[in-house]
Amino acid sequence: MKDIKTIDILDQLNVDLQGDVSSPSGFVAGGFHVGLRKQRKDFGWIYSENEAAAAGVYTLNRFKAAPLQVTEACINNNQTLQAIVVNSANANACTGEKGLQDAKDTQAWVAQQLDLPTHNVGVASTGVIGSFLPMDKIHYGTQNVMKDEYNHGAYFSEAILTTDTITKHLSVQVEIDGKTITIGGTAKGSGMIHPNMATMLGFVTTDANIESMELSNTLKQSVDQSFNMITVDGDTSTNDMVLFMANGQAENNTLTPTHPDWHKFNYALNFVTQYLAKAIAKDGEGATKLVTAKVNGAADTDEARKIAKSIVSSNLVKSAIHGEDANFGRIITAIGYASQNVEPSETYVKLAEVPVVEEGMAVLFDEQYLKEQLQGDNIEIEATVGTGDGEAAAYGCDLSYDYIRINASYRT
Amino acid sequence: MKDIKTIDILDQLNVDLQGDVSSPSGFVAGGFHVGLRKQRKDFGWIYSENEAAAAGVYTLNRFKAAPLQVTEACINNNQTLQAIVVNSANANACTGEKGLQDAKDTQAWVAQQLDLPTHNVGVASTGVIGSFLPMDKIHYGTQNVMKDEYNHGAYFSEAILTTDTITKHLSVQVEIDGKTITIGGTAKGSGMIHPNMATMLGFVTTDANIESMELSNTLKQSVDQSFNMITVDGDTSTNDMVLFMANGQAENNTLTPTHPDWHKFNYALNFVTQYLAKAIAKDGEGATKLVTAKVNGAADTDEARKIAKSIVSSNLVKSAIHGEDANFGRIITAIGYASQNVEPSETYVKLAEVPVVEEGMAVLFDEQYLKEQLQGDNIEIEATVGTGDGEAAAYGCDLSYDYIRINASYRT
Repeated sequence: MKDIKTIDILDQLNVDLQGDVSSPSGFVAGGFHVGLRKQRKDFGWIYSENEAAAAGVYTLNRFKAAPLQVTEACINNNQTLQAIVVNSANANACTGEKGLQDAKDTQAWVAQQLDLPTHNVGVASTGVIGSFLPMDKIHYGTQNVMKDEYNHGAYFSEAILTTDTITKHLSVQVEIDGKTITIGGTAKGSGMIHPNMATMLGFVTTDANIESMELSNTLKQSVDQSFNMITVDGDTSTNDMVLFMANGQAENNTLTPTHPDWHKFNYALNFVTQYLAKAIAKDGEGATKLVTAKVNGAADTDEARKIAKSIVSSNLVKSAIHGEDANFGRIITAIGYASQNVEPSETYVKLAEVPVVEEGMAVLFDEQYLKEQLQGDNIEIEATVGTGDGEAAAYGCDLSYDYIRINASYRT
Repeated sequence: MKDIKTIDILDQLNVDLQGDVSSPSGFVAGGFHVGLRKQRKDFGWIYSENEAAAAGVYTLNRFKAAPLQVTEACINNNQTLQAIVVNSANANACTGEKGLQDAKDTQAWVAQQLDLPTHNVGVASTGVIGSFLPMDKIHYGTQNVMKDEYNHGAYFSEAILTTDTITKHLSVQVEIDGKTITIGGTAKGSGMIHPNMATMLGFVTTDANIESMELSNTLKQSVDQSFNMITVDGDTSTNDMVLFMANGQAENNTLTPTHPDWHKFNYALNFVTQYLAKAIAKDGEGATKLVTAKVNGAADTDEARKIAKSIVSSNLVKSAIHGEDANFGRIITAIGYASQNVEPSETYVKLAEVPVVEEGMAVLFDEQYLKEQLQGDNIEIEATVGTGDGEAAAYGCDLSYDYIRINASYRT
């Protein structure tokens, strides 16, 4: 049943891979170069014509960066935002009281420029940790927010990148109450990507009219199945954040869990967050392949998530996949240390759809055939780990020479 | 006080870096080539002239390899061993009932050859997962156990290696009750090294007379401060095991926690296990530097251990150290996601003795000087994370291009 329903909805989804956070009605996004990076755009914004309901999910790192602290406090108090500004190149993390004041100043300058209440401006930063923001450049950025020539969704997608090699964005449309609802998303990721938010910024906008008290729950469940299920290198950064704005311009009946199309809306939202999450994983530093681990038969969802993440986090699995080597032993190892509830005799593993482990034991397979399958750039690992109901999918990438090259000299 | 005592004992330790498991009275070790590897020795043994008290610590991986299951059952039942045989190249893991029978056959053949009760023979394997042992070669090995020409401690050290580049062994001597007590150790490690036992085998022997009920506790505390505090790539293998044999030939008064020199004995034991653990970390696959993370001020020892391991496990920290880049932001990040109890405003970090973070904030430091310090091959990170009593040290290595090269093609 679930599968049929999913396909039904998928048929009704209108996906636009050119879309982004500026696609839903009433949203504008933009960005330009203020001088934080050498040449590339480094300062961007999202703006809604009217005050939007807002929710956020924030890093669990204890060294939560200053802009996250400022944005989280505002959303917690008001559940609204009308603008978000983002800078790349500098994370404004580990910068103490001065860093906090810099984030607040940024917010205040934007609020003044756009004539908004301060609390309706979110701020986000990504980049190097431990340096103060060059506030002259930031001030210059805030004075040019929403300038016509800089307003373009693609400019925003570029302005938030660090070591990313491509921009990540899309939009989808669904019909609800006879209205066309658009959900747009733009994200950046690359290194330091791991469950529970890493140097990853995700922005989702929608013109749907949604009960503001539900916004946070629906974002959380969506992030748990997407951004929190990716890993590039296992590190969870100080700056990760996903923000969600809903401005209601589509004028559908207010979405709540009792709305007949609540499931459809969530499916569309999850499509957006999962697409962005996979795009981030695939663009992990030095990555050449997207690795998906699907786990079923676990004791519960949490166990399944833990095991799936263990597989895509294992440096040994990641190196083997980089080498296109069918090293199922490392997959079994990663499963076995992730959970004490795994049942070896009930464990089955498929690598690129080829059974390699059955009942916890290696099985014979066609090495040459599997080697060819592993030359693709989308590698799927499917593991049954028992007879429970828990299932989950996690996304990662291979570990390459380039990961080391990039990270042995990023800061300097 | 603790420091003075430690130095007192260190003065009394007689360390022999040429020593190994065959150094204590009554122990013999050896090894030779049976054909599991192309040319190198691949089958080894440790033998005690008399039945020895024995204890073991075993992997927590749910896919515990067959030889570990067999050895653990014997030690649990009898707390004794007189011989241990080890093969490299093949882990006998994920091999089901046949693998279990193969391990038992190996054990039985050795028992017959040496005229020992079966339960006094321990078996261990390390190497590739998911292949059956070639039992003809193993049988050939067991028929030559303790052959004079193959008996040499160094041969054993070589026979247990996989991707290791150097053998790891030492012995120490202390005086107890006017008798000279020797403790010898030999280990192998390299990839897949992580807390809670990885593809790591450690063997410790002593001629001390020690209460057999205490053997297991003292081994466990020692492993928790040594082998369980190292990480090369975060993976915990199916085959990791540390075995400890004590044959009593030194004829000291039985060591128990009330013996006046109990602390001295444990100090000597910990010296052996920590030396071996650091040797394993430093010889991690592709490693060029030993990285030590010392954490203090944590809420308790467990928290300190978790944070110290988080630092040495971070791919980003490991890559930065490989690049000799003073990227303190990644250290802070690794601390911050390891524990929610870290106090940012109470956090201080020194990298190679240079303060880089104080009260959770970046501080100015001499980049050039620190860069020079990072060119050494022993890099120490010291972190204060609050005002608690918890402290711990963890050991790891940098992440290099060679790690990828080795692991992209190990199996094939």
